[in-house]
Order: sequence, then structure tokens, then C-alpha cells
Amino acid sequence: MATIFLYEIAGTAMLTLLGGGVVANVILGKTKGNGGGWLLINFGWGLAVFAGVWTAYKTGAHINPAVTIGLLANGASEYAPGIAVTFGHTIAYFAAQMIGAFLGAVLAWLAYKNHYDQEKDAGTILGTFSTGPEIRHRGWNLVTEIIATFVLVFIIVMFGRTPHELGPLAVSLLVLSIGASLGGPTGYAINPARDLGPRIAHALLPIPNKGGSDWGYSWVPVVGPLIGGALGGLVSAAF
Amino acid sequence: MATIFLYEIAGTAMLTLLGGGVVANVILGKTKGNGGGWLLINFGWGLAVFAGVWTAYKTGAHINPAVTIGLLANGASEYAPGIAVTFGHTIAYFAAQMIGAFLGAVLAWLAYKNHYDQEKDAGTILGTFSTGPEIRHRGWNLVTEIIATFVLVFIIVMFGRTPHELGPLAVSLLVLSIGASLGGPTGYAINPARDLGPRIAHALLPIPNKGGSDWGYSWVPVVGPLIGGALGGLVSAAF
Amino acid sequence: MATIFLYEIAGTAMLTLLGGGVVANVILGKTKGNGGGWLLINFGWGLAVFAGVWTAYKTGAHINPAVTIGLLANGASEYAPGIAVTFGHTIAYFAAQMIGAFLGAVLAWLAYKNHYDQEKDAGTILGTFSTGPEIRHRGWNLVTEIIATFVLVFIIVMFGRTPHELGPLAVSLLVLSIGASLGGPTGYAINPARDLGPRIAHALLPIPNKGGSDWGYSWVPVVGPLIGGALGGLVSAAF
Amino acid sequence: MATIFLYEIAGTAMLTLLGGGVVANVILGKTKGNGGGWLLINFGWGLAVFAGVWTAYKTGAHINPAVTIGLLANGASEYAPGIAVTFGHTIAYFAAQMIGAFLGAVLAWLAYKNHYDQEKDAGTILGTFSTGPEIRHRGWNLVTEIIATFVLVFIIVMFGRTPHELGPLAVSLLVLSIGASLGGPTGYAINPARDLGPRIAHALLPIPNKGGSDWGYSWVPVVGPLIGGALGGLVSAAF
Repeated sequence: MATIFLYEIAGTAMLTLLGGGVVANVILGKTKGNGGGWLLINFGWGLAVFAGVWTAYKTGAHINPAVTIGLLANGASEYAPGIAVTFGHTIAYFAAQMIGAFLGAVLAWLAYKNHYDQEKDAGTILGTFSTGPEIRHRGWNLVTEIIATFVLVFIIVMFGRTPHELGPLAVSLLVLSIGASLGGPTGYAINPARDLGPRIAHALLPIPNKGGSDWGYSWVPVVGPLIGGALGGLVSAAF
Repeated sequence: MATIFLYEIAGTAMLTLLGGGVVANVILGKTKGNGGGWLLINFGWGLAVFAGVWTAYKTGAHINPAVTIGLLANGASEYAPGIAVTFGHTIAYFAAQMIGAFLGAVLAWLAYKNHYDQEKDAGTILGTFSTGPEIRHRGWNLVTEIIATFVLVFIIVMFGRTPHELGPLAVSLLVLSIGASLGGPTGYAINPARDLGPRIAHALLPIPNKGGSDWGYSWVPVVGPLIGGALGGLVSAAF
Repeated sequence: MATIFLYEIAGTAMLTLLGGGVVANVILGKTKGNGGGWLLINFGWGLAVFAGVWTAYKTGAHINPAVTIGLLANGASEYAPGIAVTFGHTIAYFAAQMIGAFLGAVLAWLAYKNHYDQEKDAGTILGTFSTGPEIRHRGWNLVTEIIATFVLVFIIVMFGRTPHELGPLAVSLLVLSIGASLGGPTGYAINPARDLGPRIAHALLPIPNKGGSDWGYSWVPVVGPLIGGALGGLVSAAF
Repeated sequence: MATIFLYEIAGTAMLTLLGGGVVANVILGKTKGNGGGWLLINFGWGLAVFAGVWTAYKTGAHINPAVTIGLLANGASEYAPGIAVTFGHTIAYFAAQMIGAFLGAVLAWLAYKNHYDQEKDAGTILGTFSTGPEIRHRGWNLVTEIIATFVLVFIIVMFGRTPHELGPLAVSLLVLSIGASLGGPTGYAINPARDLGPRIAHALLPIPNKGGSDWGYSWVPVVGPLIGGALGGLVSAAF
């Protein structure tokens, strides 16, 4: 249980530190990466997963409740070598992922403190913490998140079937792919903790000009990835 | 036979979902990747192959009739371990690839539904489904597709000759390369199913402002890749 | 001892030759990469590490005093196979890294000689040698460098825990990640030698219009990475 | 001897087909990659090497006289398993590389035929075949090519010292690195055949508006890489 907390907190914190960081770099004012474009954001998030997965190797590097749900739906007997699939462990994974995602967002805010202090646009500030849709339509936004997370979890299960020695690079490239291809409408949360943890951080941190945390949309990047992850785990069991 | 259908449909659907998705992200209005550039499209398609190949591991991950034709021309005795080269299997690969490519295009349309509904430009809409030339000249467009697909199939056969543990990343980078280097004139179909399946989807789906499906050009990205793939398979047999 | 000097000098020189080179390519006038953007710089530095690590394989490829400090703090008994952790070896690593970083900067200057000679902006010239903050606030700039270097050293220690055959590509991608995600405020020195060695070269080389070497900021990219590296080594010992 | 010709011609043709192709895509008019930027060119050339090295596996995949010279200077006894270092073999490598580079340039021209026919700018046309300096100063241009090719050959020799399973990806990333970091002044020929073979093709092909082939500069990207490659081979022998 302590292992789950230590590794999943650290791995998910690494994920949102580096993932939140790249968005801050591209959209906050006066940074070196300002206006750097979508591919830079895709690389940043893809490699954030790279770092997070190295960190959380001992817990199977879920760092995402949708992956945990997907393995559960897939009928796995262990979440990682030595960690059985139980109700208690499942809740521990979720809790650790939420805590880690929150902490990573706080660290990213510290790294970009000067830039947050000078930012005037509330939407830009929230965009460095959590996702939001370009065209707001909760139904179709949910569909997009379901499809994107389905791809994530389905392919992760497939990784074990083909010999390779890419290690954590495989899932990193998969996330880069999903961002490039399916991130256009909603910003590819594909991970409830990655979205909700930083949103809570946004609500709590003392950032000038920050505005609201858009709680009206907040359930979409939680429910969509959980549904998509469960479907990915179920369908991959047939392959 | 059921294996061929299950895996080739799923793999090719993954390919056109992620491949069509990245083009939608870059060229449809109001997306996060709008105007993201050619390299973003190249990464999107390259990694769409990455995901498709992981999915279709059991059928040798052709997910492209030009690869199937290339192996046939190369004189292979099996399309994948346990799947003999027969007329029936060949037709099954082709049919599954077409069905999969169609389904993936439908999924990409669902993921970008809001953006398709607001798009006014018919050429942009068609461009997210199928390829089209920048300078229309069917003869030279055919030459470009033949050369590009020759490179694809020739190098795929060469992958087995040098030790590496890149797994599906090797063909993914090859497709990124072909897109960057030879995609300029025609948009690198290099796969008849990838182009024709989504074109049929374009003709059938209820998209506002969609315009015609450019059937007058549609044979070029089918015939060119089949010729190029066959040549690639033939020539690589001499190496 | 001679081994440490030969390999760490060569590896760190490769690092700052290629790292300084990509910045020169992007920001100096009339180059082919002028205005090429942050992702190009991130790839350039990431792959500069790639080349540097291949070069310095025999000394464990520290090429960075923050890595040496991190291993010391981690409690390692050897810096590389056959090189014990001793006071003398530690100083040798530091000295070799500084010399190498200086030499690499001189080589990059030679490679871009024509472009330096025509450059009129002193800040641009200094920017090709050493890092500087976008918003000058030494306290928070230090925090950014500490966090970024913590990530570097922490994950490097984690690389050994998961099977992979990426070789030097792993650390290269990690540096690409840190640049994309945490380089926005200060330009990610994350290596005291990478910053101070080229700054000394800047002070000594006969470059027209070069201006001052910003010694008032120079301690931040030295002290920050040393603290961050030590913390990374300490914390990773708990995992 | 026939092996050297077959594999080095094919590999070098693949190199200049894909390498010339990416430049054509970025700088010729009306292509899909027009204005795609330096990083796109770097990826295109890096992956052109990827494809070329897979092709020429049986001859050690030199596909570059500077690599052949570097191995000679390094004191290698074989150019590839079963191919001894002899005067005759050395000349065969050079001849095959030149022929292959010429053929690849012709194929790239065919792939972009429509776009060449409409191009009005002579400098742009030549730029898709051969390199040219941004600031013309043959002495310093030579220095740049020497440094860049030194890095190429030196690191290639180092690849064997560290375990990895990257296969041809390693040298591909190295060329991407050299392009990003040292390609700014002269366009990184780093390969006499890659520059001279296509220059001859440029002189012979019937391209409207093509202008001269800049023979006054043509010796720089031949002599520079040969010197740099020899130095890389010599220096790496000390490591």
C-alpha cells in the first residue's frame, strides 16, 4: 500500500509537472517557448509520460485512473508484479494519482512563478492547469475524450504482444500520437487525475487574475476517460 | 480467416482514426492544432502507423494493400506466422483493410464532429478524409505515389536484415520520413485502403458543406501504391 | 585520472559544441535555422546530450557537475565501472567538465564564425553561449533551475530500474522533455559547466559587438543545478 | 565488388531521394510542406539516413565517402564483415556512392516534376540538389563542414562502445543533431557524394529556369567532409 502511494504520487507528479510546464511555456507570456505550437505541446506531454513512467516503475506506472480502470475491465489479476487487483488497491491508486497530479501542478506553478504573476488572461492561466474544449458541447466533448482514452488503454494492453525494447518510450510516443491526432477538440485530458488534480490546485493557489476553475466542464475530462479506459480494457481482452 | 478480419480491420481503423484525426486537427477550424504545420501531420501519420501496427500484430500488421501486394511480389510464403499466402487470404486482407479504413474515418469524424459541423470549406473537409494533389496532373501524381510506396515496401522488407529492437517504431519513422520527403506533391496516400475507405466514408457521412468526393482523382492513390508496392517487393527480392 | 579527463572533456565539448550550435543556428542572423523555434532548440540540446553521452561512455558520461553531485548524494560507490567515488575523482570530473564545456563553445564559435562577425546584438551573442532568464528574479530563477535539475538527476537514477535498450537516447529524450517543459523561464542550464564554461569563452573570445558576460546572473545556473542535482540524488535513494 | 556497388548505390540513392525530397517539399512552390521550416528538413535528412542505412546493411552502410575515409583513417581492417580495406574496395565505395547519389537526385526530381516545372527561382532549384552557404566565405565554410563531419564520423565509431538496440536510428538521430546544430552556415553537406552527385544531376537534367550549378563552391562540400571524416577516424582511434 505504501509502495502504491509513493510511486504513483511521484510518477503522477512528474507527469503534471512536465505536462503543465510545457503548456505554461507555450501559452504564458514572456517565456522562451511562447507560441511554440501544438507539436511542442505534444512532445512535452508525451515526454512527461516518459518521465512519469520511469518514476513509477514499481507500481506498473499507471499514473492515470483510466489505465487502472482499463486493467480492471481487462480482467487483470495484478496491477503490477506483486500488487493484486483488490478494491483497496484500486482506491489507493486513484487517491495517489490525484495527490500526485495536484503536487505536480503546484511544482509547475513554482517553476513558472514569475510568468504567472504577470499573466493577465484568466483563460490562459486555467489552460496551463486543466483542459477545456475549443467548441463547448459536453456531449461531443465527452465522445472525443472517450475515443482518445480508448486508444490509449487499448494500445497499452497491446504493447506486450510484440517484442521491443523501447521501455517507457512506447507509451510516450502513443500519448504524443493521441495529442497530435485526437487532442484538437478538447485538449486530450485522457486522464481524470491529470485534469482534476491540477484544477483543484488552480482553485487553491494564490494566482493573480486567475478567474474561475470552470467546474461546469470539469466532469467531462473525468467521466470520458473513465468510460474510454474501461472500454479499451474490455475490447482489448478480445484480441 | 477470422483472425485476418479482426486484426486487419482493427489495425487499419486505428490507422485512419489517428491519421485522419491529425489532418482534421491541423486544417479544420477552431481546433487546438489548427495551422500546426506539415511536421505535425507527418508525426501524426507516422504514429498512426505505430498504433495500427501494435494493434494488428497477429496478421503481420499489413494494414495496407500495398504491403500485402509487396509481400506477394516478393515471393513470401506466409503473410504472417501461420497465415499462408493464398488467393483467399489475399482478398481477406484487402477487404478487411478497406472496412477498417472506412470505420477509422467514421471514428475520426465523430471525434471532430463539432468542428466538421462548423466547417464551410468543402476542400478542407475532403482533405481530412482522402489525399489530393497540389498540382493536378494524374500522370506525374501517379509517379510520385509509385516512388513513395516503393520506398515504403522496399525498406519494410529490409527491416529484418539488421538487428534492432525498435518494434513498430521502425515503420512509424519510415512513414514519417516518406511524408516529410515525398508527401509534398500528392499527400502520400501510399496505401489504397487509407485513401479509398475514407473517401467512401466522406461520400456517405452527413457532413454539412461537404461537396464532392473527387472520384476523378480517386484511382491515382489506389493504382499508384499498388504498382509501387509490387515493385518494392520485387526489387527487394534481389537484395 | 587521465581517463576522466580525456572522456569528460571530449563528451562535454561535444555537448556544448552541438548545444551552442543549435542556439546559434536559431538566433544568429542569416543562418538556415534562423527563427526555427523552441522545439528545434530542444531537439538540438537533447541530441547534443546524445552525442556527448556516446563520447564519454567510459566515465559514465556525466558531462555535468550536477550529475556527479547527484551520484555523490545518492551514495554511489562508483562514478563509473572502475572509477571509485573519491574527492580527487570528483574534482577531476568537475575540472574536465569545465574545460570541455569551454572548448565546445570555442568550436561552436568557429563553426558560426561568419555569423558572429556580422551579428550586431550583444544579447543575442551572449544567448548562444550561456543561459539568461526571461524575467530576471534571481530567487525564482534559482527555483526553476533547482526543479529542472532535480528532474534530470532523479530520472537518470531511475533509468536503471526498467529494462530498455535505448542507450543514450533515454537521457537525450529526458533533456528534450526538460527543455520543452521547464526551459521557458531560464533557458534550462541544468548543468553548471554547460553555462559557466561557455560564459568564460564568451568573455575571452574576440567577437565584435559582444557586450558583457552578465556575471551578475552567472551564479544562478551554477548554484541551482548543484542544489537540484544533489536533491535528485538524495530523493532517488528513497525509491 | 558487385555487393559494394549494389548496396552502396541503392543506399546512397535512398539517401538523396529522401534528402533531396524533403528540401524540395519545403522550398519549392505549391507543395504541402512549403515553408515547413528547418526542423522538418532536419527530420527529413535524418530519416533519409535511416532508410539509406537499412538498405545498405551488407556493406556497412557507409553511403558517404567521409565515412569510408574515416574508417580508413581509423585503421579498420574491414569496411564491413567480409569486405577488406583495400585500395580497390575504397574506390568502389566512392564510385558507388557517387552513382547512387546521382540516381537518388534524379528520382527526387521525378517525384517533384510538376513543382520543378513551375519553379522560377534558380537558387531554389539548386538548393534542392546541393548545399550552399548563407554567408559565402570558402575558408570558414570549409571549417564548418570539417567540424560537422568530424562529429559525424567520430560518434559513429563510438556507437559500438555502448550497448543499445537502436539499429540505424542511432546514426539517423546523429545526423538530425548535426543538421540542427551545425547546419546553419552551409547546409551540412557532411558527405561529398550527397553534394556532388546531385550537383551533376542538376547540371544534366532538363529543368526550366535552373541556372548554373555553382561549381565555384562545389569543392568545399567535397574537401571539407573528407578532411573532417579523416580527422574523426584518426581522433576516435585514441578513445
